[in-house]
Amino acid sequence: MPSSNPFRPALAKMQPYVPGEQPQGGKFIKLNTNENPYPAPAAVTDAITAAAAAGLQRYPDPTASSFRRQAAEVLGLPGPEWILAGNGSDEILTILVRAIVGEGQRLRLPYPSYILYRTLADIQGAVWEQTAFESDWKLPAAFGEGDEDLRLAFLPNPNSPSGTVLPPEEVLSLAERLPCPLVVDEAYADFADSHCLDLVRQSDQVFVTRTLSKSYALAGLRFGFVVAQPQLIAELQKIKDSYNCDTLSIAAATAAIASTDWLADNVAKIKATRSRMQDRLTELGFNVTPSQANFVWCQHPHKSHKELYEQLKRSQILVRYMNFPQWGDGLRISVGTDDQADACLLMLSQLL
Amino acid sequence: MPSSNPFRPALAKMQPYVPGEQPQGGKFIKLNTNENPYPAPAAVTDAITAAAAAGLQRYPDPTASSFRRQAAEVLGLPGPEWILAGNGSDEILTILVRAIVGEGQRLRLPYPSYILYRTLADIQGAVWEQTAFESDWKLPAAFGEGDEDLRLAFLPNPNSPSGTVLPPEEVLSLAERLPCPLVVDEAYADFADSHCLDLVRQSDQVFVTRTLSKSYALAGLRFGFVVAQPQLIAELQKIKDSYNCDTLSIAAATAAIASTDWLADNVAKIKATRSRMQDRLTELGFNVTPSQANFVWCQHPHKSHKELYEQLKRSQILVRYMNFPQWGDGLRISVGTDDQADACLLMLSQLL
Repeated sequence: MPSSNPFRPALAKMQPYVPGEQPQGGKFIKLNTNENPYPAPAAVTDAITAAAAAGLQRYPDPTASSFRRQAAEVLGLPGPEWILAGNGSDEILTILVRAIVGEGQRLRLPYPSYILYRTLADIQGAVWEQTAFESDWKLPAAFGEGDEDLRLAFLPNPNSPSGTVLPPEEVLSLAERLPCPLVVDEAYADFADSHCLDLVRQSDQVFVTRTLSKSYALAGLRFGFVVAQPQLIAELQKIKDSYNCDTLSIAAATAAIASTDWLADNVAKIKATRSRMQDRLTELGFNVTPSQANFVWCQHPHKSHKELYEQLKRSQILVRYMNFPQWGDGLRISVGTDDQADACLLMLSQLL
Repeated sequence: MPSSNPFRPALAKMQPYVPGEQPQGGKFIKLNTNENPYPAPAAVTDAITAAAAAGLQRYPDPTASSFRRQAAEVLGLPGPEWILAGNGSDEILTILVRAIVGEGQRLRLPYPSYILYRTLADIQGAVWEQTAFESDWKLPAAFGEGDEDLRLAFLPNPNSPSGTVLPPEEVLSLAERLPCPLVVDEAYADFADSHCLDLVRQSDQVFVTRTLSKSYALAGLRFGFVVAQPQLIAELQKIKDSYNCDTLSIAAATAAIASTDWLADNVAKIKATRSRMQDRLTELGFNVTPSQANFVWCQHPHKSHKELYEQLKRSQILVRYMNFPQWGDGLRISVGTDDQADACLLMLSQLL
């Protein structure tokens, strides 16, 4: 006698995570999901073509060894055993929550930040709690306090939507005070002035996650990774699907992470455009939070952000309207090419 | 004050799933993980090359619409909303367990069958229970009985290691008796005489999973899917990562599922070689279970299966030695090309 709803009660209660719009047709200037406006290094396309030509009938390397070796070298890590690769850093975040947070236990995130952490807690039947940033985007001391029911804390660094960064020494101090591991989500770290990779050698309570979606222009590839001490990586390994990364993405990611000159050049271009965007948005009357990511968070003192978003969308320019209850709303605008940024800024100047 | 082991107790207790050997170097005749010996359709390589050339800087379609539309048409389903695509059918199985089975609840599988189901239960902190097949690879009536703590049952059909199939009418009857949903894992169904896709219209308790790894020669791509009623698919959607399938795999899978002539030709070749392998193994004195999959399960009345496996491996021929405690052991040999099968059979004839 089948039950009519076979799903776990946690599912019925939860709000699914809704990613930014991904129009599959139409000619949008797309500045809403922090994609890189430039194509990935040519070496990536070559690696994909070669891997496809070699045939896909065999299972991939279960642990993406070639990528992990290359990444350890480029990032100055002791060895590949400090890295777990995943199907996007989304999968890495999922693995971390599944490995560490049980039903009814708690995880913590700052507010406003990446809403996905809440969804991951909801799926797990866990409880999330938010600590509001202070007005200067610092974290209050309370973020580092908790009891044994607090199992995991997330810190996006740079944060979204703000693009702000806590320096490594503050992050380490936070990790040392917390009663649980700290995940430093460095999706945007290549665009910032500092990162926390070095902390994993100093603390077995720090996990640093990275993605190739943003700074390597490979959002379509789905490839991310986590860096942590080897005994932690070994436990996370138990959770992942046997073949979570495919042959094409392993080949592409290995080529991408080796493209250090390309990365430096790409990041320099993004930062230059970001600087121009920030200046012009300020001239237009927005309050602009100085960004260390590939997007800019801006709020206008008088105009409706929702209306600005909708007016831009009617002109085929997509930005992200974000509304954080009990906190406020604003526009998060990804850094595009100079032409894309100019089109968006021009349209905004006409709307204000 | 960080705890020394931050992981859920379920992880410490569990045995990680160990997939078949995947030697990354060396010239093995690889008949151990049921890969297809032939390359995927040329249309797949073309689709990958085109998608890579178009650039990967944008996020993929979150719901793999192009694949789902094409698959619904090819498989005769009412529409794409009956399909959820995943990063290999491993991810689909993971999503099903996470969506339906809570901590401390139970899932059921036949024995011997696919050990991964047990791992998925272990990760979830759930309890797995096995029902032994009868001697003719039928299921005892007890497999269909249970109380409300039984949340999910798995039926690999064709089964591994046996390659045997329960006909759709028996599967439907089983689903109607069970107190929980039934996942019919059809990883090998394209090689069989029947399948259960039609059952999803008749019952909201049936989920049918498929993979492109075996019959489409795309194990390296990681692409699988589940077919079920739309209201069930909508709930599963909440669990998956936002972008669980990448741009390349969606393009490749869409091209693959449309390659119906290629599939028919490939399956015919595999079946012909399977038939030859079964005949010859029988001549060599093995007890051979008639297979409806792309592998053959055989047991020798006198010889040590472990030693045969090791002797073959020394000759660079990899087959799968499988030992099921309280049940028995044997060799599972994937159907290769005729040349690969002949090499394996010749070596076996010399070892016996």
